[in-house]
Amino acid sequence: MRPKIYLFGDSITEFSFDEGGWGASLANHFARTVDVVLRGYGGYNTRWALQVLEKVFPRVEGGGEPLAVTVFFGANDACLPDRYAAFQHVPLHEYKHNLHSIVSFLKKQWPKTQILLITPPPIGENGRLRNPYSENPVTQPERTNEAAGAYAKACVAVAEECGIPVLDLWTKMQQFPDWENAYLRDGLHLTPSGNRLVFEELVVKLRDEGLSPENLPVDLPLFTEIDVDDPLKFFNK
Amino acid sequence: MRPKIYLFGDSITEFSFDEGGWGASLANHFARTVDVVLRGYGGYNTRWALQVLEKVFPRVEGGGEPLAVTVFFGANDACLPDRYAAFQHVPLHEYKHNLHSIVSFLKKQWPKTQILLITPPPIGENGRLRNPYSENPVTQPERTNEAAGAYAKACVAVAEECGIPVLDLWTKMQQFPDWENAYLRDGLHLTPSGNRLVFEELVVKLRDEGLSPENLPVDLPLFTEIDVDDPLKFFNK
Repeated sequence: MRPKIYLFGDSITEFSFDEGGWGASLANHFARTVDVVLRGYGGYNTRWALQVLEKVFPRVEGGGEPLAVTVFFGANDACLPDRYAAFQHVPLHEYKHNLHSIVSFLKKQWPKTQILLITPPPIGENGRLRNPYSENPVTQPERTNEAAGAYAKACVAVAEECGIPVLDLWTKMQQFPDWENAYLRDGLHLTPSGNRLVFEELVVKLRDEGLSPENLPVDLPLFTEIDVDDPLKFFNK
Repeated sequence: MRPKIYLFGDSITEFSFDEGGWGASLANHFARTVDVVLRGYGGYNTRWALQVLEKVFPRVEGGGEPLAVTVFFGANDACLPDRYAAFQHVPLHEYKHNLHSIVSFLKKQWPKTQILLITPPPIGENGRLRNPYSENPVTQPERTNEAAGAYAKACVAVAEECGIPVLDLWTKMQQFPDWENAYLRDGLHLTPSGNRLVFEELVVKLRDEGLSPENLPVDLPLFTEIDVDDPLKFFNK
């Protein structure tokens, strides 16, 4: 059975197999070694994620432990409590507590699985004013970069407290001058370049934990290993 | 447990999660309903595929039947027997027999699973002369469009004999005037447009069999179904 890496998160995960998406790129990167399994739920925050955790990751007899799970929530938790997306808001201390609960659940279910947290990305507030999901004209963004930054910081703290790796996307993206336009297409969701950045950073983080195609068993002989003079030799071993 | 669609084939399947790839697009199309599982083995022909069938599709207790399996071989079987890729060649009658054996194996293992054959694509012979995998300068292509066409025809015949759907890519692609350059990047593997065509044709074929996101149970409540005034209501049901 080929091992799995689960991608668990909100819309930024759910959309990750769209053209040039970071999830699809990861599946391509691990094409002969790992099944990359999409578990993205658009709009979800950590409060809702906790409600569905056992359904998303059911205990399956003989199902084996996944190699890794990426946990990528916070962009919705960080919606401001006094603007139109307030129903998605989760207070900062609860977000931290929820993330801890998600990590604990996964560690208990699969002690050897590598858990990797991803912070929410920065917010392009101008981009959010053009948000097509809001019915009324928006004059104030429902998310701010400052709020997202507080949740990102909390996410990094949880990772440190749990002793697991974290990809601090909020900080990483803002190191690039034109990050708002380069990486975000509506102030929140990723452009192809934004997807590329997430993919490349994840590849490095996973490799740091020993999870790269070179270190993993290849599913069936590679074409380049097959003996041109006796192709079936390999399969009969 | 979310149902699965397996993609079984050669390099055109293995590369299908690369940027704009048809496999990734399919995974995105079914993002909340189906796990699209990659089982592509670059360079493989049906003879080698038969050797590994039980390893690729092991019988797992309680594993459930996949919704569908795409079987996409023939581009390597159709290599000419007197050119440099002769070790990949499989005679036409054996190719037909092997395809029948693959379909029988899958039908026996999973009687309710929809099997869908895909014919090899047409061959751009000029593109093959620039094939980077050949060590010596190539003056004659190792694949011809005529040979690929014979295998495609055999594939269509097998589908008819088995009473299963088939995507006749060889015929479909050649309906477009500039197919060699539009759909093929090296006379064999797909361009973004070629990937798009495979994806769109597959979506239609699968929908014809009742397999589309609208007809399948959605994994967990959609954001749009959640009650803004009482978000947890949905999860407590």
